[in-house]
Amino acid sequence: MKKLNVAMIGYKFMGRAHSNAWRQVGKFFDLPYEPVLKVICGRNDADVKIAADKLGWDEHATAWQDVVGRKDIDVVDICTPGDSHMPIALGAAEAKKVVFCEKPLANSLAEAERMFDAVKRAGVLHMLCHNYRRVPAVALAKQLIDEGRIGTIRHYRGVYLQDRLVDPESPRTWRLEKAKAGSGALGDIASHSLDLARHLVGDIAEVSGMLETFVHERPLPGSNARAPVDVDDAALALLRFRNGAVGTVEASRFALGRKNHNRFEINGNKGSLVFDLERLNELELYIEEGPNSGFRRVLVTDPQHPFIGGWWPRGHLIGYEHSFTHTVLDLVKAIHEQKLPAPSFEDGVKNQRVLDAIERSASSGRWEKSS
Amino acid sequence: MKKLNVAMIGYKFMGRAHSNAWRQVGKFFDLPYEPVLKVICGRNDADVKIAADKLGWDEHATAWQDVVGRKDIDVVDICTPGDSHMPIALGAAEAKKVVFCEKPLANSLAEAERMFDAVKRAGVLHMLCHNYRRVPAVALAKQLIDEGRIGTIRHYRGVYLQDRLVDPESPRTWRLEKAKAGSGALGDIASHSLDLARHLVGDIAEVSGMLETFVHERPLPGSNARAPVDVDDAALALLRFRNGAVGTVEASRFALGRKNHNRFEINGNKGSLVFDLERLNELELYIEEGPNSGFRRVLVTDPQHPFIGGWWPRGHLIGYEHSFTHTVLDLVKAIHEQKLPAPSFEDGVKNQRVLDAIERSASSGRWEKSS
Amino acid sequence: MKKLNVAMIGYKFMGRAHSNAWRQVGKFFDLPYEPVLKVICGRNDADVKIAADKLGWDEHATAWQDVVGRKDIDVVDICTPGDSHMPIALGAAEAKKVVFCEKPLANSLAEAERMFDAVKRAGVLHMLCHNYRRVPAVALAKQLIDEGRIGTIRHYRGVYLQDRLVDPESPRTWRLEKAKAGSGALGDIASHSLDLARHLVGDIAEVSGMLETFVHERPLPGSNARAPVDVDDAALALLRFRNGAVGTVEASRFALGRKNHNRFEINGNKGSLVFDLERLNELELYIEEGPNSGFRRVLVTDPQHPFIGGWWPRGHLIGYEHSFTHTVLDLVKAIHEQKLPAPSFEDGVKNQRVLDAIERSASSGRWEKSS
Amino acid sequence: MKKLNVAMIGYKFMGRAHSNAWRQVGKFFDLPYEPVLKVICGRNDADVKIAADKLGWDEHATAWQDVVGRKDIDVVDICTPGDSHMPIALGAAEAKKVVFCEKPLANSLAEAERMFDAVKRAGVLHMLCHNYRRVPAVALAKQLIDEGRIGTIRHYRGVYLQDRLVDPESPRTWRLEKAKAGSGALGDIASHSLDLARHLVGDIAEVSGMLETFVHERPLPGSNARAPVDVDDAALALLRFRNGAVGTVEASRFALGRKNHNRFEINGNKGSLVFDLERLNELELYIEEGPNSGFRRVLVTDPQHPFIGGWWPRGHLIGYEHSFTHTVLDLVKAIHEQKLPAPSFEDGVKNQRVLDAIERSASSGRWEKSS
Repeated sequence: MKKLNVAMIGYKFMGRAHSNAWRQVGKFFDLPYEPVLKVICGRNDADVKIAADKLGWDEHATAWQDVVGRKDIDVVDICTPGDSHMPIALGAAEAKKVVFCEKPLANSLAEAERMFDAVKRAGVLHMLCHNYRRVPAVALAKQLIDEGRIGTIRHYRGVYLQDRLVDPESPRTWRLEKAKAGSGALGDIASHSLDLARHLVGDIAEVSGMLETFVHERPLPGSNARAPVDVDDAALALLRFRNGAVGTVEASRFALGRKNHNRFEINGNKGSLVFDLERLNELELYIEEGPNSGFRRVLVTDPQHPFIGGWWPRGHLIGYEHSFTHTVLDLVKAIHEQKLPAPSFEDGVKNQRVLDAIERSASSGRWEKSS
Repeated sequence: MKKLNVAMIGYKFMGRAHSNAWRQVGKFFDLPYEPVLKVICGRNDADVKIAADKLGWDEHATAWQDVVGRKDIDVVDICTPGDSHMPIALGAAEAKKVVFCEKPLANSLAEAERMFDAVKRAGVLHMLCHNYRRVPAVALAKQLIDEGRIGTIRHYRGVYLQDRLVDPESPRTWRLEKAKAGSGALGDIASHSLDLARHLVGDIAEVSGMLETFVHERPLPGSNARAPVDVDDAALALLRFRNGAVGTVEASRFALGRKNHNRFEINGNKGSLVFDLERLNELELYIEEGPNSGFRRVLVTDPQHPFIGGWWPRGHLIGYEHSFTHTVLDLVKAIHEQKLPAPSFEDGVKNQRVLDAIERSASSGRWEKSS
Repeated sequence: MKKLNVAMIGYKFMGRAHSNAWRQVGKFFDLPYEPVLKVICGRNDADVKIAADKLGWDEHATAWQDVVGRKDIDVVDICTPGDSHMPIALGAAEAKKVVFCEKPLANSLAEAERMFDAVKRAGVLHMLCHNYRRVPAVALAKQLIDEGRIGTIRHYRGVYLQDRLVDPESPRTWRLEKAKAGSGALGDIASHSLDLARHLVGDIAEVSGMLETFVHERPLPGSNARAPVDVDDAALALLRFRNGAVGTVEASRFALGRKNHNRFEINGNKGSLVFDLERLNELELYIEEGPNSGFRRVLVTDPQHPFIGGWWPRGHLIGYEHSFTHTVLDLVKAIHEQKLPAPSFEDGVKNQRVLDAIERSASSGRWEKSS
Repeated sequence: MKKLNVAMIGYKFMGRAHSNAWRQVGKFFDLPYEPVLKVICGRNDADVKIAADKLGWDEHATAWQDVVGRKDIDVVDICTPGDSHMPIALGAAEAKKVVFCEKPLANSLAEAERMFDAVKRAGVLHMLCHNYRRVPAVALAKQLIDEGRIGTIRHYRGVYLQDRLVDPESPRTWRLEKAKAGSGALGDIASHSLDLARHLVGDIAEVSGMLETFVHERPLPGSNARAPVDVDDAALALLRFRNGAVGTVEASRFALGRKNHNRFEINGNKGSLVFDLERLNELELYIEEGPNSGFRRVLVTDPQHPFIGGWWPRGHLIGYEHSFTHTVLDLVKAIHEQKLPAPSFEDGVKNQRVLDAIERSASSGRWEKSS
């Protein structure tokens, strides 16, 4: 089988998740290519060498500029923090590589637009990694909506709640620094909820947003010194969709007890859907059938369910990382078919427009256009 | 035991619930007075006679003006639609009766303020019936918050979702007519969620609101003719509390599968709380205690829990109507102690100010002050 | 409307629940008779007088022998501990009264059989109060089974778990004394689970049972002295139904955290059902429809659901005591129609046969016939 | 790092799960050896070749007899159906290999005892793969019990419910043939529930068991011919533990709607625990702390929880197959420390004794000793 050589830039949390996906996808699914974990790249030579060994990459490197242009590389997979997505993507596009980029596409709308322009001009395939679209329960939700089972959608109700920052002594990492992270809960987790909103309901016309920082100063990691927090701890918005549906979205790192509560509820005029990432193998489905209707808990582990056929027999749960494996699966198929996979960088730009509108609205105190 | 003579105006859904409360309260709780269901009043003589027999009232009447001034009456209980609350309350206050009024206090802020002025000037006791404050699980939530068990509150997340209007052929009743109902989901059900927000979290400083009507015309009851719907089917708002907490509230009659889903979640820096009226005997409580913490389902049926001592042994559920019985219990006690019970008409005015601000914001597209 | 005069013997927990049912039934349902709470009877004159006032009875008395024969009495309602059920029922039957008896029918099979003989010979109507049959969710379960929606039943899985006796210093009340209570968890709570098994699945052919006492001695109430516990703390059994289904039943007062966990699961070849008394307004229903099937949570509060029409609009919960009101409703209707209501004393005898077989099996170590 | 060469016999469902564990364990955990997937063995050459490629094995073979004796092999991993476990294990033990065997250890007690004798005599390390012991939530349950957090255990309540055989036209596979499978639901799934009972509560002294076959004849796979089913469709038992606790266990493939419902509830005098494999990332924990106690849902995804540190940050779920990875992790560590891992073949013998006692009891109609 033809090989597909991958270069990965970045090797922390997302690097581990993407590496696992590249390693595992061929063990469970039939592929048109054999993915090869060719080279992993990071700035610290010692650390990236350890990562290469641990994560199963053939080589390691420290300069992404050298890597993205290598003739033997087919795909560049970007897993770095958001502030370096643009230069790497531009370099990879120029070198005519398939560009696969972890979300959010960029730290600002302007950067995102430049990235989308670059891949378009270069004529290369591109994909944004919003892994939750390919959790089987979410894919099933999409399928039911597309089949009309839920009817005309009236409401989207999305929250992404965590509790990592409740302790005011939790350190001021790069994620709490606007220059590196772009924004706080907004870009990190509300972006997931908004991508699902667009994916499942449709484009968002306008928003009324609100950003809140509860703790304004935190200790620097491993230090007594304190530094300001200049990103949001929580982001909230009212949404008006193009198709007439209305919605809310809320992201917070101050929701005590919620570990990774990426939940949405969708109400249509024929049915409703509820998903919660903390129970990612389940989809709650309501179909109106009279007095004995009720929200049913569908265990999305049937071979007929999206992506499940590759894994285990009915009733055997999958985990978080499998959503990356499914994303890579569809990327590899798309490369073979030379079709643009979804979400593309264009989706990234659209998402960024919504994030941008929420920031503008939080500042203006008015509704702002988001598409 | 001294008797407490009650006159009730109105005899439909709320009339039945209040009647039951007056009948039952003395059978389960020790009271300083014996409530007497003296006279029930409604416009249709035949119907109100049937109601009097069925609901256990000694007499019936058709003109509230005659009833509120009767010397033998101690309490006037107002259960009519919102557009008649003000005149009845003014009459009862003038006659120096205790005034007990079903929510919402009035259909507009101006009316609500006039009612509060009237009871203040008359020097009579007054109480607004927001029955959900006295569901034991909600009363326990309040107690835990007051004891500091939840810590500083960061988030309030309230929804009140029903699905009664999903069918576009569902009739255009008086509840969908602005002239009679004042507003739609906003005044009818968002008002509950906002009262709980104020009760549990504190005063709401400003709001960004949104009102939506999905179906603009419906058949008149028992007729082929169609009439316009000029109230909201759904009401959504972002909330900023005086104490720095932020929140969302959403009410809809288009949330298919949600029958009476009055739910709130509160996140503090020590714990979190979740309540759902569809499981009203439970409170979900999270207390941060390290990795083995988790949302615990407290069955609020212990004799030590608020109001439960009057009912059954531990583990025996109570129903919806019991919340009215608890409200009447506290009203009777307050009358005996000549103390103002809560929520008072002042709370009604404050609630109305929030509803009013949401309407103004929905129209202006800007944040509006709500207190 | 013709009156139906009731005499009640007993005034503790069950007396309060039955009194409430007699008082409330006519306020919510249309009845062929007006029930009159004529006389309540108990051994302690002072206490029974207080109970009469509190619970709404016209008169009180101390000798049941005098009461059951009164000409003005139509129904004798027996709410005393199990050891006095037989003499009172025999007296009431001889006096040609309708006999309504709280479960368990008697403390032994022999007593139960004598009671059934007495009412048959006297030709009077009789009803056993197994109130859980008339929780709307249970009544809906029965209806779905009778309609064939669940198909051929394969499994019944019943537990009735409480945690009242976990503390070894919890007192040795009469319920822990074999002479008064007959048995422990077996007769008190397993009897409910077994009645539901018979009601929903069918007659039980044979059982393998086990009784366990964890704490053999407890302090007498209000005393330092300790007395032996000679009843079971937990009762467990395997069941073989006449129709080929198999089952388990387990009752315990040592299941920490379970307050009133009367739960059953029924699996048929078309669907499954789960009920839990701690969420008595819900029925979990599974209907096999392919991969998107799932246990749905039916909120059994629709006007079309059994008994709900008398109460509140859709989505408003009812409580524990309502199940007694429904039982009394059907008793009053049965009296009017002169039809034997279910469960009758014959059901009581059949239930007692199963309890008896479990006791025999626990002692013999073998399967025993139970019908 | 020193290599650990593995030979696997069998390549179907369990072969895939074990292969994944061997491949993944070193990518997520620090190991004393590097596992090498050396050779996979199965009877059909073409099929086993495909499996070797797909699952990542260096070589393939068709005769286990040749494989188990190879000098370069350190561990023999047995994933075949139960009827061949004994000969392979005996061969591997004789060749002084570490023997790792999928459950159940054997199809009969006699075989299990012979296997345990063989590994003891050979002085080789041995481990039985009961993977559910190493689901993090189950490992946490064990830890809490060992720390005394639950107190003295009174009750074990285990079910393992599936619905695979509800359809009478579901084929008569080898799993329904006593000669190959030994038993039906009993050995296949009740064995898991009984292993967890022994692991978490203690040895089982005696049982009263019941086996039921609902459908006695089924079509042969891919054929019109029908063949008898001579194993149980459902297995039920009452349990008496050595330490005084009592329990029930039930396994069925006729529980419609239950896909892989391996659930247990344990009640102690200080707390209770509930686990459900369909929500394997959660443990329900009840600790008695007064009226505001409740079953809390612990999301067992904290780095401090057993095995989680190797995977993802807090709040990210793991799947079914991870339990095998944890099992292999502990096996590799045990080999390095030359300590016997648990569960060992001795546990397998003990488990088999309980299964055997249930079969004997089902036949005798009496309680039977099980240890």
